[in-house]
Amino acid sequence: MSDRIEFRFSGSGGQGLILAGIILADAAAIYENKNAVQTQSYGPEARGGSSKSEVIISDAPIEYPKATKVDYMVSLTQESFNKYINDVKDDGIVIADKELVTDLSKAKGKLYMLDMVKSAREELGKLLGLNIIALGILVEISGAVSRDSIEKALMKRVPKGFEDYNKKALEIGFRLGKEIKNNK
Amino acid sequence: MSDRIEFRFSGSGGQGLILAGIILADAAAIYENKNAVQTQSYGPEARGGSSKSEVIISDAPIEYPKATKVDYMVSLTQESFNKYINDVKDDGIVIADKELVTDLSKAKGKLYMLDMVKSAREELGKLLGLNIIALGILVEISGAVSRDSIEKALMKRVPKGFEDYNKKALEIGFRLGKEIKNNK
Repeated sequence: MSDRIEFRFSGSGGQGLILAGIILADAAAIYENKNAVQTQSYGPEARGGSSKSEVIISDAPIEYPKATKVDYMVSLTQESFNKYINDVKDDGIVIADKELVTDLSKAKGKLYMLDMVKSAREELGKLLGLNIIALGILVEISGAVSRDSIEKALMKRVPKGFEDYNKKALEIGFRLGKEIKNNK
Repeated sequence: MSDRIEFRFSGSGGQGLILAGIILADAAAIYENKNAVQTQSYGPEARGGSSKSEVIISDAPIEYPKATKVDYMVSLTQESFNKYINDVKDDGIVIADKELVTDLSKAKGKLYMLDMVKSAREELGKLLGLNIIALGILVEISGAVSRDSIEKALMKRVPKGFEDYNKKALEIGFRLGKEIKNNK
């Protein structure tokens, strides 16, 4: 089981978290010789707006597809940070946005506060693509799939005409992820 | 556990099966007071092109999110029909397209052959929306969520400008599903 890696994207509906999860799962299953499960699981609380999307990647077939010991979580809202941080492992890595998550009283694991929103605003001109920035960060710090695989998977899922925009978002993510690696 | 309903959309990548699953899960979790899990699970065989997307809907929280006793399966390719029919319950319902699935030697459960492709071609003018036709069929025959909920969920996930097209596809699905109900 040691090769199993659990990812959780958390935020609100409309931020593209499911798509980010699908792209990560595609990269592992289609472009690398791995097994992948992408799941979104929610109950009546979804009406509140909180949403999570999970991906498990493993060299072996995945018997239990629910994330229970999260290795990498990214949070794009305060509510989802509070709600979904519980299953993060003690040495798991949590990435949260500096502007969107400010109350860290429920923090668990190793927490890194990053400038995702600020980078999107300044370098992309809008907040569309925050999900892809988050995706780039998780790929960079986990090394679960290669940069090449995630780029290919991204290009297959992105609407025509938005390839460059999304590639730029992914590269912002790589850069932010690298900052964490350099500081570890 | 008797209120747990398992759905499986199967076909090939690019047919929009994940989206169909997401819309069904949204309808249950956001527009009705239910729990829902949407999963896609695949391994290295995904490179072959087969793909499945599963949804579990339940009144109770869903502990095990993988479909193991499929109540309703729809198949949009021969390969996925062969590959994913195994977990269908003995009294489960399998919907396959008359043109896309012709070898029924592996059939299981109660099989219904429908004119999804033909209806799309004749009534929509193209095959885009086959996933939504399949969605309409499963909603109609299962009654797991209301027509109203699935329409709302669909409208939230559909790209701007494609609302009417998708609504028409959904209604074709309702009609085909109703034919099954009338023949049972």
